[in-house]
Amino acid sequence: MTGYGLANLPYGVFSTPGTSRRCGVRFGDQVLDLALALSDPVFAQPSLNAFMAQGRPAWTRVRSQVAEVLRSDLAPLHDLSAVSLHLPFEVGDYVDFYASEYHASNVGKIFRPGAQPLTPNWKHLPIGYHGRAGTVIVSGTDIKRPHGQRKLTPDAAPTYGPSVRMDFEAEIGFVIGTGSELGSPLTAADFEEHVFGVCLVNDWSSRDLQSWEYVPLGPFLGKSFATSVSPWIVPLPALSAARIPAPAQDPEPLAYLKDASGTFDLALEISLNGHVIGTPSFTSMYWTPAQMLAHMTVNGASVRTGDFYASGTVSGGTTDQLGCLLELSWGGARPFTLADGTTRTFLEDGDQITISATAPATDGTRLSLGEVKGRLVSS
Amino acid sequence: MTGYGLANLPYGVFSTPGTSRRCGVRFGDQVLDLALALSDPVFAQPSLNAFMAQGRPAWTRVRSQVAEVLRSDLAPLHDLSAVSLHLPFEVGDYVDFYASEYHASNVGKIFRPGAQPLTPNWKHLPIGYHGRAGTVIVSGTDIKRPHGQRKLTPDAAPTYGPSVRMDFEAEIGFVIGTGSELGSPLTAADFEEHVFGVCLVNDWSSRDLQSWEYVPLGPFLGKSFATSVSPWIVPLPALSAARIPAPAQDPEPLAYLKDASGTFDLALEISLNGHVIGTPSFTSMYWTPAQMLAHMTVNGASVRTGDFYASGTVSGGTTDQLGCLLELSWGGARPFTLADGTTRTFLEDGDQITISATAPATDGTRLSLGEVKGRLVSS
Repeated sequence: MTGYGLANLPYGVFSTPGTSRRCGVRFGDQVLDLALALSDPVFAQPSLNAFMAQGRPAWTRVRSQVAEVLRSDLAPLHDLSAVSLHLPFEVGDYVDFYASEYHASNVGKIFRPGAQPLTPNWKHLPIGYHGRAGTVIVSGTDIKRPHGQRKLTPDAAPTYGPSVRMDFEAEIGFVIGTGSELGSPLTAADFEEHVFGVCLVNDWSSRDLQSWEYVPLGPFLGKSFATSVSPWIVPLPALSAARIPAPAQDPEPLAYLKDASGTFDLALEISLNGHVIGTPSFTSMYWTPAQMLAHMTVNGASVRTGDFYASGTVSGGTTDQLGCLLELSWGGARPFTLADGTTRTFLEDGDQITISATAPATDGTRLSLGEVKGRLVSS
Repeated sequence: MTGYGLANLPYGVFSTPGTSRRCGVRFGDQVLDLALALSDPVFAQPSLNAFMAQGRPAWTRVRSQVAEVLRSDLAPLHDLSAVSLHLPFEVGDYVDFYASEYHASNVGKIFRPGAQPLTPNWKHLPIGYHGRAGTVIVSGTDIKRPHGQRKLTPDAAPTYGPSVRMDFEAEIGFVIGTGSELGSPLTAADFEEHVFGVCLVNDWSSRDLQSWEYVPLGPFLGKSFATSVSPWIVPLPALSAARIPAPAQDPEPLAYLKDASGTFDLALEISLNGHVIGTPSFTSMYWTPAQMLAHMTVNGASVRTGDFYASGTVSGGTTDQLGCLLELSWGGARPFTLADGTTRTFLEDGDQITISATAPATDGTRLSLGEVKGRLVSS
């Protein structure tokens, strides 16, 4: 498979039948057994956290060593088809942002018709909230349709039952490698030092649970039942050719939100049961990942190894660039047709969503961020 | 000190100079060294999590063994004054509820004047949101005044600077001992099996950061800089005499929120620099702790050992029963006078907040839930 050459080398956690979970690097359609390859017990652990906690100098050294081992004939490799992939890191805190102006505007129009689509704060700060870390799961895990309180019509009394407006959200996630001290904010310039790598995120959403619960304290059960992440964490150096200037921001952000490092050129693709339904680009995001990190810690909040934050739904300005069904079906008002002739407003039991992404690589090819997939099943 | 007899026996984590953190039980003004007393390495760990994960039968057995050891002359005890107390559990996910009708009504009147104080969903479900687990700290840790974006007047542009409306919130916290499976909701009846114990919580709040950021996705930086918890976790059996029927709820909650177990009679006391400023009672809370657990998991969200959830501000219906300064000063509009003659609207640098609580004990006396204290310092 292309996209997993020496210019990528993403990290994950795998096991083979009868063996315990340990760290690996994907190379083509193979997985390098890191603990064997580098004779380092930090990779014999069932998560990347211990390695991530070692910091940028160790990450740089290991990336060179991995490339060297792979160029030799002695690399301990497993066929990808022979391994199971697991959640690659132990999740500390999970923060979900809301950084696409297109997405936030569309959601505002759908959820709050008649009001200004963007709230007054939106262009002054990257809006975010804490999600549930304990229900972050690896790609491939089935998603049970959640039950809960929802109003089947706006004027009806709330009832208990299965969610009837199930959605996905295509997002990009950023994994914290090294932590910070409580009371010491990070700046946008600290992004490279603290962020280990990037993954794909599906922030599964129940729009009926969410719309009934979210005023005044934000999304809770409409999101907390599951968040899927891709199994391979692409390290930041692999994305150096994908760096692009940040989008124009007006009004100019306050000084603590200044970011000279820019954002990433990541091309996403979303499929429903194998039919492509959206191809958003991360270049359309208003707020940058480094601005999110600076904002998240401006109040002195610390970060820890394994914390991660997601961008919010990646949606662009055209109908082929939308990152969730809420927008694609305009709140359920406009069913759309798949290539197999069936129609959707929200997800049906058995539907599988696959989100993949690619980016320019340092060798002139494109690298793959892999995919995050999941199937909705009845419960 | 009274309140820490055989009818209480709360669990915590302590160290003595030159030794590592380990688990203990408070008895009077002494701390029982559990690993020594019971010769069990589970208590030699720096958090209660491993013990909590063992479940209710182990909790019951250990509580009996501790009482037996304390009745002997051989208990390995340390003077409380000779030990340092630490965060008693490793926090998984932290959820903050909003379960006081008085508090929610007052906040609604202050933050959304002219609108209905309670949002339409409030009496149908216990409103909650996820807080930041990584900034949960033990009582006694100083709180640095957070910086961030706030509007100094409602019509001003947002500026960066120290929060000028610093507040506390007096809450009760519930610590999850044993986890649940993803996709399998818990019921109110599962409360006794999964909840290990109870602590005191100060949900420090920056009202200016919060009011600017919280629409539409809820509180974030206004809360995430610090949440303080008391060092001693009171196990549920110690509170069996504090069990009282749940308050009347109208409308009748949906079936999944039915709770036959009721709530707890906990008397809180809040002091600012040693002057009592509030004495709310947990009996005034609208939603019960078991209802919160059932709601938090109704969508299939799992819980893990070390997760904890807090009740939201405990406020009653009279001015001597308010659990935060936002209510006490009515959003800053009504300065109030302390016994030392100084006045406050919000917290000043150097102010110390101490929240304590007592409850009826099984031996006819009252037991102490200890205290959670913290001092606001400039940053």
